[in-house]
Amino acid sequence: MKLLVDVRDLKFVLYEQLNVEDLCKYPLFSEYSKEMFDMALEQAEKLAEQEFYPTNKKGDKEGCRFENGLVKVPESFHRPYRLYCEGGWLAMADDPEVGGQGFPFIISNACVEFFAAANWALLMYPGLTHGAARLLKKYGTPELQEKYMYKMFSGEWGGTMCLTEAGAGSDVGNLRTRAVPQGDGTYKIEGQKIFISSGMHDLTENIVHMVLARIEGAPKGTKGISIFLVPRFLVDDNGNLVDNDVNCGGIEHKMGIHGSATCVLNFGENGKCLGYLMGEPNKGMRIMFDMMNEARLFVGMQGLAHASAAYLHALQYARERVQGTPVEKMKDPGAERVAIINHPDVRRMLMFMKSSTEGLRALMHLAAYCLDRVQVAETDEERDLYQGYVDLLIPICKSMGSDLGFRVCETAVQVYGGYGYTSEYPVDQFLRDCKIASIYEGTNGIQALDLVGRKIAMKRGLLFKNAVKFSTELTAKFRKNYRMREMLEIYDEAAESLIQVTKFFGLKGMTDEFHVPILYAKPYLDLFGDVTLGLLLLWQAYIADRKLYEIYADHGAKDDKARQAVVASNRSAAFYAGKIASAKFWMFQVLTQAAGKARAIMTSDKSPLEIPEEGFALV
Amino acid sequence: MKLLVDVRDLKFVLYEQLNVEDLCKYPLFSEYSKEMFDMALEQAEKLAEQEFYPTNKKGDKEGCRFENGLVKVPESFHRPYRLYCEGGWLAMADDPEVGGQGFPFIISNACVEFFAAANWALLMYPGLTHGAARLLKKYGTPELQEKYMYKMFSGEWGGTMCLTEAGAGSDVGNLRTRAVPQGDGTYKIEGQKIFISSGMHDLTENIVHMVLARIEGAPKGTKGISIFLVPRFLVDDNGNLVDNDVNCGGIEHKMGIHGSATCVLNFGENGKCLGYLMGEPNKGMRIMFDMMNEARLFVGMQGLAHASAAYLHALQYARERVQGTPVEKMKDPGAERVAIINHPDVRRMLMFMKSSTEGLRALMHLAAYCLDRVQVAETDEERDLYQGYVDLLIPICKSMGSDLGFRVCETAVQVYGGYGYTSEYPVDQFLRDCKIASIYEGTNGIQALDLVGRKIAMKRGLLFKNAVKFSTELTAKFRKNYRMREMLEIYDEAAESLIQVTKFFGLKGMTDEFHVPILYAKPYLDLFGDVTLGLLLLWQAYIADRKLYEIYADHGAKDDKARQAVVASNRSAAFYAGKIASAKFWMFQVLTQAAGKARAIMTSDKSPLEIPEEGFALV
Repeated sequence: MKLLVDVRDLKFVLYEQLNVEDLCKYPLFSEYSKEMFDMALEQAEKLAEQEFYPTNKKGDKEGCRFENGLVKVPESFHRPYRLYCEGGWLAMADDPEVGGQGFPFIISNACVEFFAAANWALLMYPGLTHGAARLLKKYGTPELQEKYMYKMFSGEWGGTMCLTEAGAGSDVGNLRTRAVPQGDGTYKIEGQKIFISSGMHDLTENIVHMVLARIEGAPKGTKGISIFLVPRFLVDDNGNLVDNDVNCGGIEHKMGIHGSATCVLNFGENGKCLGYLMGEPNKGMRIMFDMMNEARLFVGMQGLAHASAAYLHALQYARERVQGTPVEKMKDPGAERVAIINHPDVRRMLMFMKSSTEGLRALMHLAAYCLDRVQVAETDEERDLYQGYVDLLIPICKSMGSDLGFRVCETAVQVYGGYGYTSEYPVDQFLRDCKIASIYEGTNGIQALDLVGRKIAMKRGLLFKNAVKFSTELTAKFRKNYRMREMLEIYDEAAESLIQVTKFFGLKGMTDEFHVPILYAKPYLDLFGDVTLGLLLLWQAYIADRKLYEIYADHGAKDDKARQAVVASNRSAAFYAGKIASAKFWMFQVLTQAAGKARAIMTSDKSPLEIPEEGFALV
Repeated sequence: MKLLVDVRDLKFVLYEQLNVEDLCKYPLFSEYSKEMFDMALEQAEKLAEQEFYPTNKKGDKEGCRFENGLVKVPESFHRPYRLYCEGGWLAMADDPEVGGQGFPFIISNACVEFFAAANWALLMYPGLTHGAARLLKKYGTPELQEKYMYKMFSGEWGGTMCLTEAGAGSDVGNLRTRAVPQGDGTYKIEGQKIFISSGMHDLTENIVHMVLARIEGAPKGTKGISIFLVPRFLVDDNGNLVDNDVNCGGIEHKMGIHGSATCVLNFGENGKCLGYLMGEPNKGMRIMFDMMNEARLFVGMQGLAHASAAYLHALQYARERVQGTPVEKMKDPGAERVAIINHPDVRRMLMFMKSSTEGLRALMHLAAYCLDRVQVAETDEERDLYQGYVDLLIPICKSMGSDLGFRVCETAVQVYGGYGYTSEYPVDQFLRDCKIASIYEGTNGIQALDLVGRKIAMKRGLLFKNAVKFSTELTAKFRKNYRMREMLEIYDEAAESLIQVTKFFGLKGMTDEFHVPILYAKPYLDLFGDVTLGLLLLWQAYIADRKLYEIYADHGAKDDKARQAVVASNRSAAFYAGKIASAKFWMFQVLTQAAGKARAIMTSDKSPLEIPEEGFALV
């Protein structure tokens, strides 16, 4: 049994739900085909399983080491990193002109699921490099691109994003790193950054940092922030590497992702750190936001990937671990012992994990698909529509991916019982590795503010209206199938609850109760996520139901008994039955609760704001 | 600021909600007084803060070491352990005749909160000793008591409970450890136990194990299990310690509680392990169950304690960590920066933590109080009533304590942001330490089965009926206060939802759909827990409201403005206002969702049972 990604489900999303092969009809992807997509997925799976996964636990145990200002990653990471770069995985979806392979983003993103599930800490290195390289591609001068970019897209050099400072985390506008113009177009950079993933390591000989800093005299807050390319080693005119006064002050000891180097970086300790402005002065935040969607989707992918691996491991364990008797024979001490997958409570936990993982998978790949549709859009309207979907989906991908992914990992530990708590099995690491995802790339609280304060308000609510329209048009198709009726009723009610809260927030936002939408932004995001996953799973059930009845027809199975026999003996039928079960679980167990969640928000209870600070505790 | 236990809230539960000083009216506790209770609490807090807490992180980093068959606990644990024993904390609530102090159990349990919050891994050693010692007291012969028991109650020797085997975790009836009668009343013990907390360590010179085993020829399953006292070293007739062939085969490497030695124990590897039967043959399970309530409450206390420490640490951090501007000035880059406690999303998280922690505290201490009332009951009816409350509350204490405690720890990490994920701060350890609580002493799935399959069904539902009666009578008092009305309405609806599901389960249990209550036992337990915490918090709000209005009256504060001024300047008023806010949060944010949770269960969706096994995944 394969334990990282359910490829059958992944392909269901790609080919049966999103029909991604249709992307090949656009000129940009005309050289591609479903066969090539499949081949890429197969290769990614192979590399992930054979090279990434075996180093996952090793990396967790060994961790990174900080010695004499340098950082050593786990020894075992070097080989899979090299193979990953050689395979061209880093720039899989980038322009051939920068050395990329030009795949649709969704296929590259699908490959990410394998690598992320196999060894997230390792994948972070090329993941961050990619973001920095893309920024350089979009905003760098040809000269800088020539010197730095190609080696980043190939993975020969690393890259980072340097935002956080000790006093500027969520409040990035408060940063203190300074940039002093040198008159020749370059800047002296001075300041300290913390929590810099991949900030220093020995996988590559050079690391190119993208650093947020304030040019001397620039306005306070986010409007005075610029972004600079600051390489660890400068490339001089002879092509030699010259030290650029970027030093690592130490690494963090963390709950998880031990193989990922989380660094303190000191820029210009000796006054000799040079940076190159990317784009225009004071536009750093806008440029960062430009990169943010993919970075946040990447974190959502982390949650999905941990969930996927945790689910499949727990499933395998539940199939193999013999413990207890069937529930009908609880009182018969002589009854045969069965695998724990037979126990209702374990099945319920597995169904929660399955349903959540599949919902997240559909969500992430839908967002990736919309990013591709933005690329290939033939009209402004089309581009705006898909960009709007992306903008709305990203905070949900990031927050739901990390929160629900964590919940799935937690459930995996529970399925393993005591063994799950030990490092003998892999699920404890999934849980620890996953926890960071709700924090970095903007805490989930920040995601909720982004959704409520920006995305919902954008263009007078047009993004939300378009999403509702999408849901309405899609579900109209389902209504023709009477077997969908019960699930659809629950979905409709949940979607209506979400619409009610959205309107409610809109009204509150215009009054002196504008605190209320801010106070309940995160529960709102959670509700939004529940409903979105509900729509995606319902959509999947609709497709699966059709395919299942085709199989029944092929087998001439006309009554329940005959159909059950088909499901029991035919793998495709079993798969589609499983898809319907996932949707049922989400509708019946999650979306039945949507109205209650909406009600909780709309109580508008302001006691969390009104409680006197001493009231929290006198101690 | 004190960061382990909110003593003001603890005393509120003890003296304002449960009026525990009234226990002193009973002959058993007539020598005690509120002053003596307070003194004990004060001493416990001091020892916990000054000696336990400083060793918590050390113990996490150092962990236990297995060397040559012996286990070394973290070096720093020896001193606080000695002080704990010297202070007589281990047998605080036990009979003076066994060296105990004879305190009411609730006071001893209240002291547990301090120690557990300060260093749970360390507290596990005496915690397990206590359970074993009590078992010996109840079921041992005077000779065995003389030899072993007193040194256990004093903490000079350790104790354990040995249930789990590799093939017998939740399915304890499947165990293989054998006991062969020697003809002289003793037994040869042979078998392997795993996951034995405190199974081997160097805190004490001897360890007395209580071992579940099957006497040769005894029936299969739980009905053939007996329990044996098996000391690591036997005491011979001259009082010398003689090796008893109990060997440690290794320790587990775990996600948390690194300072607690989790051991593989081999009994009779050399055929020389002697055991003494406790109680009658084949009554081992019943005897274990006898001890189970306190053991499970102890695990609930772990969840509460981690929640308490996590909340108070996060609160302090939120008060001190400056980040971002007030929400009204979000767009003003020059606005002053404020502590993050001022941000609505952080306040919402803190309120969730506060409300949950206080609810759990009330729950645990209510259970402890009922245990005391069983002790002092003057009639059989009274004893049965309180024993019924205990039986119903215990699975909720264990499961809600561990699950909600974990959720609070997770939220603490979120409040700390990136720092929370590092070992620089304590919350990452709380999260990791807490995770085990949902697994050991019966997984939370087992707790749910205990509630649904045993407790609810007991005496034709009498326990549940009594609980409903308790709620009805208590809330009748609240109805006179119009300020309670809105909260009460929500509570009433939630309680009604719980009653509906309970009836629904009762009906299903009698049909061929008896799988349904088993499938949804855990969500039912969660709903039960939500409602129970709701009742306790509502009760607290009622008391707090009365006291708050007394303070208002004392200050002649007759309008909102004057009252707000009192709350802002008077610490008692702030505390009571905080209590009301906790109840509001639970009612408005949690219990508003109870009907949805009930609805989810009552969909009776059987797809988790019906999905074909291949439908979970084909991979």
